[in-house]
Amino acid sequence: VLTSTELDRLSVVLVSTRNSLNIGAAARAMCNFGFERLRLVNPYEPAYRDARSAVGAIGLLANAKEFNSVAEAVSDCTLVIGTHSAGRRQPQHTFYTLSSGASLIRSELSTPENEKRNVAILFGSEKFGLLNEDLSHCHWTMHIPTAGTQPSMNLGQAVAVCLYELVRDNPNETAEEKPVPSSSETLERTTALLLEALYTSGYMGNQASEEKEEAVRRLVRRLYLSMEDATLWLGMLRQILWKMRTK
Amino acid sequence: VLTSTELDRLSVVLVSTRNSLNIGAAARAMCNFGFERLRLVNPYEPAYRDARSAVGAIGLLANAKEFNSVAEAVSDCTLVIGTHSAGRRQPQHTFYTLSSGASLIRSELSTPENEKRNVAILFGSEKFGLLNEDLSHCHWTMHIPTAGTQPSMNLGQAVAVCLYELVRDNPNETAEEKPVPSSSETLERTTALLLEALYTSGYMGNQASEEKEEAVRRLVRRLYLSMEDATLWLGMLRQILWKMRTK
Repeated sequence: VLTSTELDRLSVVLVSTRNSLNIGAAARAMCNFGFERLRLVNPYEPAYRDARSAVGAIGLLANAKEFNSVAEAVSDCTLVIGTHSAGRRQPQHTFYTLSSGASLIRSELSTPENEKRNVAILFGSEKFGLLNEDLSHCHWTMHIPTAGTQPSMNLGQAVAVCLYELVRDNPNETAEEKPVPSSSETLERTTALLLEALYTSGYMGNQASEEKEEAVRRLVRRLYLSMEDATLWLGMLRQILWKMRTK
Repeated sequence: VLTSTELDRLSVVLVSTRNSLNIGAAARAMCNFGFERLRLVNPYEPAYRDARSAVGAIGLLANAKEFNSVAEAVSDCTLVIGTHSAGRRQPQHTFYTLSSGASLIRSELSTPENEKRNVAILFGSEKFGLLNEDLSHCHWTMHIPTAGTQPSMNLGQAVAVCLYELVRDNPNETAEEKPVPSSSETLERTTALLLEALYTSGYMGNQASEEKEEAVRRLVRRLYLSMEDATLWLGMLRQILWKMRTK
């Protein structure tokens, strides 16, 4: 059972949602399982408006936060997870089934109260799911084990199943002492500095490429940097960059 | 693991459902998790008609069976389970949480093929849930462990969560793919190259220090680099080093 502090550390992030009923359904599932933090990245505005004004709209919709990018929506989070349907796996990412993913999420949520740990679970649009750019902000992805013939779930149902798995009675997971992970904001600063160093060195070729930048972003996420180590890497990169520029 | 025979033994029974979207959502969740037998007891006719004629209506809706009473709908079943929201427990019935209930259902479904065992899971109407008369046909009831403040789930989401719990521990699932970790030799090469870059940049100061080098070595170990990622880092470091040296 998750404590209220633990519940409060988890944000559901809906990316580019189109349908007001799905926004409402996601909000309802959150209430059902005791979660309160809803974030929306570029929702389709009429849908968001309809969802909030719907009869029986859930109170937490009024407190939902809106963002223009995934980066902003997850900037205070130390663990960011992408969801996708069983058929749409992204080969670039480490992925887990929902049940193993949920136990990793629970252990992140259950760190001592004085440590700042926030978790975001991202859900993509009804039509396209999460895009590669969205996924490049994620540490790993997880999927619900659906049938091969009909793998793609309805958004509201997918949210419900994921949150259920987080709160269903789970065997005692042993607490281990782990370093404080970096916030996504710090990881993004590290990514930016590394990209700058790579461009300056010529590693990225002459042309900026979104694809290559996403690959670098994923590479940085896979380091699972602690806050302390991220600070070290930022310092090293700054010095290296300075050296490359001072000729 | 539910085999196709086992999946085929389970019927989802919707009792007095009012909303076509909920009928469609229940059908979709069944497809998602590999179940095919949908039964409806006194559905609100316009809703049932709408659900079947909806764009993207699921094939199994065409094969759904309609009944006038719960008794008829479950007549071929050896185990009948009622569902209700966490707040609406019927004190007359033995009740289980979803996870213990699901394991009882799985063991019923997994009896030898020559024994006729069919299981029905009943879901009540959106407004009233299952009535006492409906519940009287049930062997026991189960509920999804929802939050006390908002216990009542949306019908389509409740169906999705129940079916998910039935199939969730599926050892037949494709094993999770984890990256191949780097050998220590590769990590040591990465460390050496990083140290070279740090000395060249001036980050390490003027004097070589064993202590600082060890700190960098530990830093690299904490990255838990995969073989593939280590290769990328080696390439980046080489390029950066080359750039710092070519003035």
